[in-house]
Amino acid sequence: MEEKSNGPKEDGNRRKNNNTVIPGPTNPMVTPLLSDLYQFTMAYAYWKAGKHNERAVFDLYFRKNPFGGEYTIFAGLEECIRLIANFKFTAEEIAFIRSSLPKTCEDGFYDYLRGVDCSDVKVYAVPEGSVAFPKVPLMRVEGPIAVVQLVETPFLNLINYASLVATNSARHRFVAGKSKLLLEFGLRRAQGPDGGIGASKYSYMGGFDATSNVEAGRLFGIPIKGTHSHAFVSSFMSLDEIVEKSLQSRDGSSTCEDFVSLVQTWLSKIKWSHLIQGIFGETNQSELAAFISYALAFPNDFLALVDTYDVMRSGIPNFCAVALALNDLGYKALGIRLDSGDLAYLSCETRKFFRTIEKEFGVPDFGKMGITASNDLNEETLDALNKQGHEVDAFGIGTYLVTCYAQAALGCVFKLVEINNQPRIKLSEDVSKVSIPCKKRCYRLYGKEGYPLVDIMTGENEPPPKVAERILCRHPFSESKRAYVVPQRVEELLKCFWPGSSDGAREELPSLKEIRDRCIQQLEQMRPDHMRRLNPTPYKVVSVSAKLYDFIHFLWLNEAPVGELQ
Amino acid sequence: MEEKSNGPKEDGNRRKNNNTVIPGPTNPMVTPLLSDLYQFTMAYAYWKAGKHNERAVFDLYFRKNPFGGEYTIFAGLEECIRLIANFKFTAEEIAFIRSSLPKTCEDGFYDYLRGVDCSDVKVYAVPEGSVAFPKVPLMRVEGPIAVVQLVETPFLNLINYASLVATNSARHRFVAGKSKLLLEFGLRRAQGPDGGIGASKYSYMGGFDATSNVEAGRLFGIPIKGTHSHAFVSSFMSLDEIVEKSLQSRDGSSTCEDFVSLVQTWLSKIKWSHLIQGIFGETNQSELAAFISYALAFPNDFLALVDTYDVMRSGIPNFCAVALALNDLGYKALGIRLDSGDLAYLSCETRKFFRTIEKEFGVPDFGKMGITASNDLNEETLDALNKQGHEVDAFGIGTYLVTCYAQAALGCVFKLVEINNQPRIKLSEDVSKVSIPCKKRCYRLYGKEGYPLVDIMTGENEPPPKVAERILCRHPFSESKRAYVVPQRVEELLKCFWPGSSDGAREELPSLKEIRDRCIQQLEQMRPDHMRRLNPTPYKVVSVSAKLYDFIHFLWLNEAPVGELQ
Repeated sequence: MEEKSNGPKEDGNRRKNNNTVIPGPTNPMVTPLLSDLYQFTMAYAYWKAGKHNERAVFDLYFRKNPFGGEYTIFAGLEECIRLIANFKFTAEEIAFIRSSLPKTCEDGFYDYLRGVDCSDVKVYAVPEGSVAFPKVPLMRVEGPIAVVQLVETPFLNLINYASLVATNSARHRFVAGKSKLLLEFGLRRAQGPDGGIGASKYSYMGGFDATSNVEAGRLFGIPIKGTHSHAFVSSFMSLDEIVEKSLQSRDGSSTCEDFVSLVQTWLSKIKWSHLIQGIFGETNQSELAAFISYALAFPNDFLALVDTYDVMRSGIPNFCAVALALNDLGYKALGIRLDSGDLAYLSCETRKFFRTIEKEFGVPDFGKMGITASNDLNEETLDALNKQGHEVDAFGIGTYLVTCYAQAALGCVFKLVEINNQPRIKLSEDVSKVSIPCKKRCYRLYGKEGYPLVDIMTGENEPPPKVAERILCRHPFSESKRAYVVPQRVEELLKCFWPGSSDGAREELPSLKEIRDRCIQQLEQMRPDHMRRLNPTPYKVVSVSAKLYDFIHFLWLNEAPVGELQ
Repeated sequence: MEEKSNGPKEDGNRRKNNNTVIPGPTNPMVTPLLSDLYQFTMAYAYWKAGKHNERAVFDLYFRKNPFGGEYTIFAGLEECIRLIANFKFTAEEIAFIRSSLPKTCEDGFYDYLRGVDCSDVKVYAVPEGSVAFPKVPLMRVEGPIAVVQLVETPFLNLINYASLVATNSARHRFVAGKSKLLLEFGLRRAQGPDGGIGASKYSYMGGFDATSNVEAGRLFGIPIKGTHSHAFVSSFMSLDEIVEKSLQSRDGSSTCEDFVSLVQTWLSKIKWSHLIQGIFGETNQSELAAFISYALAFPNDFLALVDTYDVMRSGIPNFCAVALALNDLGYKALGIRLDSGDLAYLSCETRKFFRTIEKEFGVPDFGKMGITASNDLNEETLDALNKQGHEVDAFGIGTYLVTCYAQAALGCVFKLVEINNQPRIKLSEDVSKVSIPCKKRCYRLYGKEGYPLVDIMTGENEPPPKVAERILCRHPFSESKRAYVVPQRVEELLKCFWPGSSDGAREELPSLKEIRDRCIQQLEQMRPDHMRRLNPTPYKVVSVSAKLYDFIHFLWLNEAPVGELQ
């Protein structure tokens, strides 16, 4: 099916500004109850201790890039903002929480919950679709501690998979190359309904071109694609089934009364043609009937699945006969899809066959006919196809893309870094799990050639790094790892996407298309060796300013003695 | 938090009978548009060819058990029935489909779509929660070919992940053993919001005891659990923060005016007690403040996360001091949670400490205090813990359970097996991908000891296998693999769950609890060597009757010659 790019369903309210209403999350199941029970037991304990309104700052970040790579795409932000913009407990939800907590919990807590919203919460975040790195906050969420904890679980849920699948998509795009069409075909294998819908949205964001998922097309305006399955082919028994055989020519000037005969004539011409003779014998007639029926339904969009019986002996000759008959009537077939077998070999053989047809019958561009491949594709198989040589123009990728089979989870965490203006550090015997305390600012420093060199975190009130100034970047936990950087450009990473009601402007939420463009542009801006599939060069380890470094270690020593008195 | 088993939200309409209304899918995003575009292009082509009402039979099945195991739990059926019971296109949906198909598609098709529902579709299925095996249909869907194809994608989406995660849950239960409490903690890492909600539902079905997911508790009546996080602990700075220090005794007979002092007294007693002296020095005071605050909020449900600073030197002594103070007032603490470190070692050390407290201070059952463990647990780590020896009573399992990290997708397929009473076979060079044609009946044959021996498929009109009768079971594609079976019990597997409007009774949809009971009972009924984690004995390869065997091979030969004429 030709690409259909329809305006997204919610076009009217997607381009928000600070005065418009932000709609709720795409999935209506995303409510304040889509959370862990402990957020509510903690809320009660904070409330009971009179601590619920203490001002807390949490960082949301991940510790390690997925898929053995050196980058991650940040995605899911819009859904988080949609949630908090509409964060309010219904009476039914409060009744359920009451029934879930001990009877001893006081009524006042439920009165408090009834009034909870996110008007006093602030969300700073890296723009959605950005390239991101471990340890640097993707989001900083500030507000009354009980409320901020209530959004922890849904935020992590909305960010973790979105970022994982957007990254997976970008990685598949990287291996496939820019010129190939990439189609997301994973709905049937996704982890639940919005595993499917999220996969479509975030694969598109990460660089895919289209999806098979109709609902995702409707919700987000993603181009949707699809033709037919093996069942369609095997549902036909013979050519006798085709009752209505006429087809008008494309320009409406004439009508072919018996398109079936026209196809049969072409099939015979192909079979006995000088260059092809002997390549195939009898083709499968139910397949031929299916192809003809599909062409009669979609003469402008004829794309056939050719591997139900035998690709080279049946599928390709049948396809070519139909395509040539269509060509007689002014229609141009789109191509074929291969869904099994040796895709490198079959695509090359198919290309040869198409070129032979072009030569033999003088049909311009027949040799360039589109070849789509599917069947359990992933980064490895795409890479293997590239190495073997192939003639595929479009890849349909399902299971491995949408379930992120190579690594099914991203480990984003949400850590308290400050309360009541007091910095907090979470220690761990595993240094990689020690949190970086303090409310921070984060910057990306760019070098002469336009590539990002390093991300640096500073205390909130430190002066920002300046262009052309020499800056010491320190590894937060490794004393000897440090480097001077003279940035040619400095980009502040965290922007305010939700100021609550307390003050002014916030970043607009861009359209999905704009986010996708940002993502593609950011990926192109990276130094290529960070991006390669095998053994990529690590992006300069995330760093902190000298001042923040000293403060972290002061705090650490302050907390650490607990265990050392023994 | 103590287990809270609340009635499911939809209790009123969950116990359906043939006269009650079946509600729509749990996730309102599951609509007829949650499908691949090719289902609609095929529907148009069928309609255009006048073929859309031809009676088709499709089998839904998988080809291989997941996780290297020898069984699979079938789940997701109820959601499928909810979808088809409410399957109807809205005007907006039809407008979207129209905008997605070529302009040349005729108006009559949209009139047809407007009238489409599933009243003429029949669904036969294995009851939800059943143990299932490769190649035997989990579902047989019959009806007008265009309509049945429209439900293919949503059915696969609803079955694939549900069955995968239910199986994963059952496998975790098998390794953990019956006596342990298993808690699903995966919402934050799940693949999207209903990745999380589905995980909670189907983990419970597969044998977990509870979830942290509040919304899943509300929707399905699953017990929900949770206490507090590291952030709660580190949000406290010192004991001075605790303003309201009084706590009434459990029986209401007295009030302790300074619970903080009571705890401090106990901490000192523990520290200098004969058996403990020297094990710890100063404990972390912010941790102690957090524990006391939590205990004041939940004196009946005190369960503390003890690894924020140092488990044995701070968390456990702090916990014990609070638990002993609670004990003085008649409350019984629930226990502790470990979320990092060497869980085998720490749980054993913790148990020793608890027993010492019991002995030293004469507090009955203190040694049996609950120990919950979490932190990236999976089948392997549970198995390793068992081998090392541990003292954990409850496991909280998240990422690896809900994302099915070990194998993130189940490959259920939906294959045409008959159209217009003509059997259809899908060939493939890979024999494991050849479909088993014909509308079939499926039986499970049980042996003397009550174990299932083999599943057998027969043609629809063959007489069913009889108890005590000798039956030849043949491998469908391997001539030499066959066996005689004399069943002691014969169970027909596929039951009618959706008769459409055409005729009578259908199976009632059981409650989630009933499905869970069936699942646990079926798992217990399996021969243990099929169930073990490493190198399980394969369940007798799925078989067909002698008659069906002959027919398959007749059909195969009939279709196969296509490629042999060359």
